[in-house]
Amino acid sequence: MEKILLAHGSGGMLMHKLIDSLFIERFGGSVLKEKKDSAIIRMGGKEVAFTTDSYVVDPVFFPGGDIGSLALYGTVNDLSVCGAKPLFISLAMIIEEGLDRDALEKIASSIKNAARAAGVEIVTGDTKVVERGSCDKIFINTSGIGEIYYPGLSVDRIRPGDSIILSGTMGEHAISVLSKREGISFLSKVKSDSAPLNGLIFRVLKASKMVKFMRDPTRGGVATTLNEIAAGGNFGIAIDESSLPVAPGVRSACELLGFDPLYLACEGRVIMVVRRGDEGKILRAMKRDPIGKSACVIGKVIAQGRGKVYLNTASGGKRIVSMLTGEQLPRIC
Amino acid sequence: MEKILLAHGSGGMLMHKLIDSLFIERFGGSVLKEKKDSAIIRMGGKEVAFTTDSYVVDPVFFPGGDIGSLALYGTVNDLSVCGAKPLFISLAMIIEEGLDRDALEKIASSIKNAARAAGVEIVTGDTKVVERGSCDKIFINTSGIGEIYYPGLSVDRIRPGDSIILSGTMGEHAISVLSKREGISFLSKVKSDSAPLNGLIFRVLKASKMVKFMRDPTRGGVATTLNEIAAGGNFGIAIDESSLPVAPGVRSACELLGFDPLYLACEGRVIMVVRRGDEGKILRAMKRDPIGKSACVIGKVIAQGRGKVYLNTASGGKRIVSMLTGEQLPRIC
Repeated sequence: MEKILLAHGSGGMLMHKLIDSLFIERFGGSVLKEKKDSAIIRMGGKEVAFTTDSYVVDPVFFPGGDIGSLALYGTVNDLSVCGAKPLFISLAMIIEEGLDRDALEKIASSIKNAARAAGVEIVTGDTKVVERGSCDKIFINTSGIGEIYYPGLSVDRIRPGDSIILSGTMGEHAISVLSKREGISFLSKVKSDSAPLNGLIFRVLKASKMVKFMRDPTRGGVATTLNEIAAGGNFGIAIDESSLPVAPGVRSACELLGFDPLYLACEGRVIMVVRRGDEGKILRAMKRDPIGKSACVIGKVIAQGRGKVYLNTASGGKRIVSMLTGEQLPRIC
Repeated sequence: MEKILLAHGSGGMLMHKLIDSLFIERFGGSVLKEKKDSAIIRMGGKEVAFTTDSYVVDPVFFPGGDIGSLALYGTVNDLSVCGAKPLFISLAMIIEEGLDRDALEKIASSIKNAARAAGVEIVTGDTKVVERGSCDKIFINTSGIGEIYYPGLSVDRIRPGDSIILSGTMGEHAISVLSKREGISFLSKVKSDSAPLNGLIFRVLKASKMVKFMRDPTRGGVATTLNEIAAGGNFGIAIDESSLPVAPGVRSACELLGFDPLYLACEGRVIMVVRRGDEGKILRAMKRDPIGKSACVIGKVIAQGRGKVYLNTASGGKRIVSMLTGEQLPRIC
């Protein structure tokens, strides 16, 4: 009998297949089929974004964040990349019996601070407790509602020649969680990039009307997100290895542990597909935000290789970058 | 060091204290403080209900339902009791590595059928997989959005003399889950009452403008829900033991196992506080729906005993019915 594997939750190929075959096929409304980070629905004559995410990160506390701030920012970011102003958040916790109340208080305070930093309000919640051994410390679901202020973001608008911008370095989140989980002390200086993207994105969207599509490269990393974008369109994507921003700590971790930074999850970065010519003002807007200071153009949309992502290597070669297959790092978010 | 206990998730006294001290105090926006089943927010000039619930029921399949339909109906009901028409649902699953794909397919189909029965659309989702032993088979979070069509439901409108109506028998859900979990075969004829309440509630609200407040008696049962209602107001509540509807299977289970049906979770029942005089048309409207055929008046709002719930016993006595303390049945939803 077929079993569910860890890789089914990786954000990569197997997860996409599972979701397509099990859920999209069954529930298959037009909104769900778009497979955006948020659903775009109409309420009271306005376009509204609605999204949900569960967080199961292990360990619960890691350099640069914890499950609370991660859960808050993650949902804020899923709304933000759809051109929405995040407004209202729901918070549902599943707690393992025996969790220290102190840990729970720390997480609650972290959520409070994160909500304040992102300018959103937690309006509803739920608390469940399960027996020891029936969950791992705490799982948090956040759902969120935002009002669309920049409509029309769509893969359909992407054309060959468009530029691909990444707002910052890749993979700090994944490496920070891994270093804490495995107790790799020399990596402990790498801090998660977990952060709310609504401020940075708002600056950019005020500066340019030529942003065509956005997505935050979480599970499966930049490589998987670019594949998701390419899969939906009549174009290919080419990125340049030499332009990919990687912080030194992440680079050494990858060399040592054999990870490819292209597949490492970020939790405070956004990929934007923008019309050629607007890169300058977009990068200037991004760099005015502290979390955008390493923003750069990492590649472009091309007419060839429909549905595929290519990497122009630093040594002058060219290879296909596929979606994540299997599981690189479970429970990263 | 203080630890989180199962009872903190019971729906009863300890849970209320935890939520008040840990969450309401910190996040304390005006919407959250109302502690309704759904948050009432404004979007595009309209009143919208927004709610979230995580489902951890054990076992996943039980007589009359499963975690999928339960999760769908639970959120539909939390919207419905706030006078909202449920429209959009998010679906987030945390799956234990090794779960049979067949079980997942069965759950997915059940969710699909439940969404159709309730007339809602699943518009966004999330899938996480955790290592074997890090969760128990599957946990599901549903959040939901609905449009308010019957505004003004509030504990503040409740006055002495108002009637308390319960839409059906108590405790089938709790007993069906328990019988399956413990393998008590002679109870297996008791089927969960899990059902969508939006149809029944819509009929009632069309029939009467005098419904003042509603809530569905889930965790902690009718006793806890009535205490929640009384706690918010300047009145007491008196219920009559002889009028409480209990199905024969639940009654014998309670006698045998020592449970009080007043504390058993329902998943397809609603408690309404209505103005005296309107009970007749409300009950007629309820009884037109198959899930409302045992609807009856179970008590009334009284001027005395502010904040308290009293039971007039069948033998002519009177006692205080407190909120659930401790944990009666963990992981019932």
